[in-house]
Amino acid sequence: MRNVTKENITEVFKSYMDKDMAPRTREIMSALVQHLHDFARETNLTHEEWRQGIAFLEGCAAIESDGRHEFVLASDVLGLSSLVDMLHSSSKSTSSSVLGPFHVSGAPALPVGGDMKRDFGGPVLLAEGVIRDTNGDPIPNAELDIWQTAPNGLYASQDDEQDTFSFHGLMTVGADGAYAFTTVKPVEYTVPSDGPVGDILRACGRHPWRPSHLHYIVKAPGYRTLVTEIFPDDDPYLDHDTVFGVREDLVMTYVEKPASAFPDGLELSGKVQEPFLHVKFDVVLSPEA
Amino acid sequence: MRNVTKENITEVFKSYMDKDMAPRTREIMSALVQHLHDFARETNLTHEEWRQGIAFLEGCAAIESDGRHEFVLASDVLGLSSLVDMLHSSSKSTSSSVLGPFHVSGAPALPVGGDMKRDFGGPVLLAEGVIRDTNGDPIPNAELDIWQTAPNGLYASQDDEQDTFSFHGLMTVGADGAYAFTTVKPVEYTVPSDGPVGDILRACGRHPWRPSHLHYIVKAPGYRTLVTEIFPDDDPYLDHDTVFGVREDLVMTYVEKPASAFPDGLELSGKVQEPFLHVKFDVVLSPEA
Repeated sequence: MRNVTKENITEVFKSYMDKDMAPRTREIMSALVQHLHDFARETNLTHEEWRQGIAFLEGCAAIESDGRHEFVLASDVLGLSSLVDMLHSSSKSTSSSVLGPFHVSGAPALPVGGDMKRDFGGPVLLAEGVIRDTNGDPIPNAELDIWQTAPNGLYASQDDEQDTFSFHGLMTVGADGAYAFTTVKPVEYTVPSDGPVGDILRACGRHPWRPSHLHYIVKAPGYRTLVTEIFPDDDPYLDHDTVFGVREDLVMTYVEKPASAFPDGLELSGKVQEPFLHVKFDVVLSPEA
Repeated sequence: MRNVTKENITEVFKSYMDKDMAPRTREIMSALVQHLHDFARETNLTHEEWRQGIAFLEGCAAIESDGRHEFVLASDVLGLSSLVDMLHSSSKSTSSSVLGPFHVSGAPALPVGGDMKRDFGGPVLLAEGVIRDTNGDPIPNAELDIWQTAPNGLYASQDDEQDTFSFHGLMTVGADGAYAFTTVKPVEYTVPSDGPVGDILRACGRHPWRPSHLHYIVKAPGYRTLVTEIFPDDDPYLDHDTVFGVREDLVMTYVEKPASAFPDGLELSGKVQEPFLHVKFDVVLSPEA
């Protein structure tokens, strides 16, 4: 087609694709370019606005590194990461939520009842629950990968002051499917806002805050792996999570209890002198497709 | 909104934007995210496909440099660059076409009738025409910035063997609006295909070729600057330009003429011994808005 116009260019693009290409690639590329072109036509996108878009991508490129994933962050604050999560969440399992860019794989084993708080200050939080199947039966030997921020709002991967696996633990539950661990109450924190994604947040009058949460990845043979987060119900950012990660079934009440109520058989048993927080959160896995 | 769902996330995104933000930014961001989310919902985009998208952006970032503009190239082969051009083209002027990433600003002056061929081999092409307004009247003293590939298919900015301004010239026309210059016939060439954009072309069964062309930027006080290209009508890639730059009014016949027909008063007059090619191409500028 030598007479390309603003009306026919999307069809010309589609006509360039080979009939023998992978059907799913054709579906993705056709939809991507249809929406890209419709976006430009609907907004009557100017050359200067196009240059700003290119400058945004080049600005992300300039700071992209092993420790800084600006394109992932852009996907997060635009809601794309959460949308992809929700598109592939099972309605019968616990809701999934964003993995985020801060997880460090290969954490050391944390026994059931173990402590992640160590010498850090802040209120003790005892989190416990049972890993269950969709019938409510416990899943024996499930693996629970746990991580969170330190009290300063930073993950170990962002913070030279912390050990590599600070506030990371890998727990294998027993035959009863039960998990339990102590930690400090997680805190709300900001996503990095000193780059091009921060510029977008500011241009939209948005803040960079995420509500406080614990991260879990839960795995068991025969079940779909679940990536999720648990939020306390008193966090001020629950209704404005800048990466759209909050789901109603992931919001839990942290109950304050006296030190005397701290249960036996845990690593911190007998060592808790102040009131502590307690949250019960069962996790439901759906079977593999 | 703490109960974000795949159905409501686009509205939640819009609700996060501040009421006092710039209206045009709101319009652009709303349309961008609506289309991004609709794309993901319509294709039921998987986590693995999302990861491939992020890997594409990170792959572009890894090779982005002063000499390699992979994000611009992505926009070009997806038709976005040409679409933005066409959205802001005037129907009364000569059609615009893509600037491309290879232009070098600040070329030395080329007098009317001057030669850009110098010692390069290949058929002599004499290009001439008149810069006119929309009434057909000549525009005196218009400035014509001309560039093209060398016979090896490379622009000066891509080729260490060429001078900085090889096959670049900046011509100021006289009171009659007429321009003329000699060069070699441009050749078809490929866009860079050794990066992530090349991977997309291959996945779509597409070639990386552009039809041969001369590039012009035409400027005159009181008129909209025109960025355009002139294509010979015998090029095999006219109907499959990989960056969608061809418009019907930019396709011209290069007429072969005997050496004896070469006109007087040009830099190569009296020096042309073989048949040469001749193209006449008038350029129409529309008034500034």
